[in-house]
Amino acid sequence: MGLVVQKYGGSSVADAEGIKRVAKRIVEAKKNGNQVVVVVSAMGDTTDELIDLAEQVSPMPAGREFDMLLTAGERISMALLAMAIKNLGHEAQSFTGSQAGVITDSVHNKARIIDVTPGRIRTALDEGNIAIVAGFQGVSQDKKDITTLGRGGSDTTAVALAAALDAEVCEIYTDVDGVFTADPRVVKKARKIDWISFEDMLELASSGSKVLLHRCVEYARRYNIPIHVRSSFSGLQGTWVSSEPIGDKKVEQAIISGVAHDTSEAKITVVGVPDKPGEAAAIFRTIADAEVNIDMVVQNVSAASTGLTDISFTLPKTEGRKAIDALEKNRPGIGFDSLRYDDQIGKISLVGAGMKTNPGVTAAFFEALSDAGVNIELISTSEIRISVVTRADDVPEAVRAVHTAFGLDSDSDEAVVYGGTGR
Amino acid sequence: MGLVVQKYGGSSVADAEGIKRVAKRIVEAKKNGNQVVVVVSAMGDTTDELIDLAEQVSPMPAGREFDMLLTAGERISMALLAMAIKNLGHEAQSFTGSQAGVITDSVHNKARIIDVTPGRIRTALDEGNIAIVAGFQGVSQDKKDITTLGRGGSDTTAVALAAALDAEVCEIYTDVDGVFTADPRVVKKARKIDWISFEDMLELASSGSKVLLHRCVEYARRYNIPIHVRSSFSGLQGTWVSSEPIGDKKVEQAIISGVAHDTSEAKITVVGVPDKPGEAAAIFRTIADAEVNIDMVVQNVSAASTGLTDISFTLPKTEGRKAIDALEKNRPGIGFDSLRYDDQIGKISLVGAGMKTNPGVTAAFFEALSDAGVNIELISTSEIRISVVTRADDVPEAVRAVHTAFGLDSDSDEAVVYGGTGR
Repeated sequence: MGLVVQKYGGSSVADAEGIKRVAKRIVEAKKNGNQVVVVVSAMGDTTDELIDLAEQVSPMPAGREFDMLLTAGERISMALLAMAIKNLGHEAQSFTGSQAGVITDSVHNKARIIDVTPGRIRTALDEGNIAIVAGFQGVSQDKKDITTLGRGGSDTTAVALAAALDAEVCEIYTDVDGVFTADPRVVKKARKIDWISFEDMLELASSGSKVLLHRCVEYARRYNIPIHVRSSFSGLQGTWVSSEPIGDKKVEQAIISGVAHDTSEAKITVVGVPDKPGEAAAIFRTIADAEVNIDMVVQNVSAASTGLTDISFTLPKTEGRKAIDALEKNRPGIGFDSLRYDDQIGKISLVGAGMKTNPGVTAAFFEALSDAGVNIELISTSEIRISVVTRADDVPEAVRAVHTAFGLDSDSDEAVVYGGTGR
Repeated sequence: MGLVVQKYGGSSVADAEGIKRVAKRIVEAKKNGNQVVVVVSAMGDTTDELIDLAEQVSPMPAGREFDMLLTAGERISMALLAMAIKNLGHEAQSFTGSQAGVITDSVHNKARIIDVTPGRIRTALDEGNIAIVAGFQGVSQDKKDITTLGRGGSDTTAVALAAALDAEVCEIYTDVDGVFTADPRVVKKARKIDWISFEDMLELASSGSKVLLHRCVEYARRYNIPIHVRSSFSGLQGTWVSSEPIGDKKVEQAIISGVAHDTSEAKITVVGVPDKPGEAAAIFRTIADAEVNIDMVVQNVSAASTGLTDISFTLPKTEGRKAIDALEKNRPGIGFDSLRYDDQIGKISLVGAGMKTNPGVTAAFFEALSDAGVNIELISTSEIRISVVTRADDVPEAVRAVHTAFGLDSDSDEAVVYGGTGR
């Protein structure tokens, strides 16, 4: 008998009908001979409504209390889901994150899981129950306070439980059919990916793909837990994310997995930085001390005549104010002329392990952008990804052009061969 | 420094404004030099909304999951209240029933508190925090499952915590000014009671007064915790419930504390019962086995000619069906002619320890009812209470008549003297 962990997002359990539909699907998995653990998010807009209430009573809600508040959402959905399953004649028990043994650090609102001790879940399964677990929440190791895991936390809960219980698969149910070669809202011809490696999925996630968060995929890779991303509204196979294709699936790794884009970032350019050792370090120490996460970094070639250079980096728009303030405050220590802030940028990324061994991918990428008349402002690469920053307005057209150029459109032949030498 | 436990009901924290108003009041108590523990109910209609959701997914929600669901309500209100207090510049921490050490038995939906181990509350207080505790909930001793205490459970939580923490007073904040000599919706001239003994309060509570539940008063009496029932909307003194009048209050015990009424009961008459030993036992064993709680019991004098008698008893209307079914099922074993069910009855009770020593109270009570043209169907008495059953339609007039006759009206002189000998 296999052990399956299923995770259902808020849109899948938005109302009583949704909960009943999900309950039927869970019972199917149980009837198929599996032990079933279900991780569930808060219903639909519940979390937003709770946040709204918090803002009405306090402009700066304290972390501990904010977590206590938000975790009420999953408590409601998991209890209702357990009731709905029992109403179908099957045994189910719901567990809070704390009861399920999800132990975290004490960083409220974005706690990290440091251990999972699912003794009560194991007992419930052994007694023939379906176990329903509240996603997104845990209990802190030192203070025994309720914590939340931050954005996408329910996916992480599911993968962490799957790892602790040595599950065969972690099924992530959502409102889309799987991971696509590009955002289907932008690229009509985007194709559902049948299988993708952890590495490519990690790059897609950190490049703007919203289906799975980086943190959840990273956890799954570390413990080698296959993820199956699929729709809770259909019975279709979705996208498998794993180290190797699963079972008898003869899926060959695509050269290019997909095109991701992201318009949530801004660019800061530090102008007139003396080109001497320690300058970049001073800038990024300032940013790090302000607890701002940065993404791409580019340093221009220094102008010989002045001995000054410019350093640009991208960061979430939401952290722009904080970064600017920190830099301005430390301007005397760092030494620069001025700051430029630009939040009208977009990032397009091409991801695929195949680019390691297929020369010419980079050239073809830039040609596609050039043919579409898209100007490139910054470039950054990893072994299996190329990213460029463009004007935000150019993003949709750029994504479509690249998607077509690499033969990813659903009506094109698959194989695309690249000439040239090296990337 | 004194320790005060305050309890706020759902109507006091119905929205963000209510929560902010309550937060100010709590901070006042803290500023007055007290250690403050606050027990809070779910906001306004939250519990009803959750029950409605449960009914949508399952006609018979399981006890364990139902409790898990309902406890989300207090989790929301307590976290918001803690945030609102912190926003006023004071430290506050919220605790679930489980975190607060409220240990119960495993009877879901109406668990009983069997122990309170408020170690975390004590620590929070010692560190200068205001402690906010979820009312109505606990954790079962054996299975560590979340439980709820049933109707009025938050009051019981407050009194139990007050006892465990050896508080000076348990303040119950509600939407009325205190306990009245009669229901002010029925008797316009009803008077707020300044002080009432535990015993009289217990009788009022079991006779239909809704302000405090019997269970909560019983707990307070056992541990001798003074209760102060008052309005969260005004700064007025409310009603003190304690063994003796508190502090320098020279309040004399009234002869009559008040008039309670109850129209939530029905009457079942078992007609044609053989008048021999064991018959009543058979009837009430049947009722007890069906887990139906009964109130008044009256057996008529047997008719000599037939050797048959009638037995009548009252019970909550909500349990009428269950009792009738159980009796019909056991009719062969018990032996009776027929059952009569009457849900158009009402009960009027006069409560006051003074009736023990003031002869004539019973006579005056019956005279008042007679003068008002109210027919009496059943009578039951305790040492400090007389109750009668009448037609439901007669109840308002009967309550007003008795209230006036015993000098309880707010514009009458207080002292009323009764003549006659004995009750």
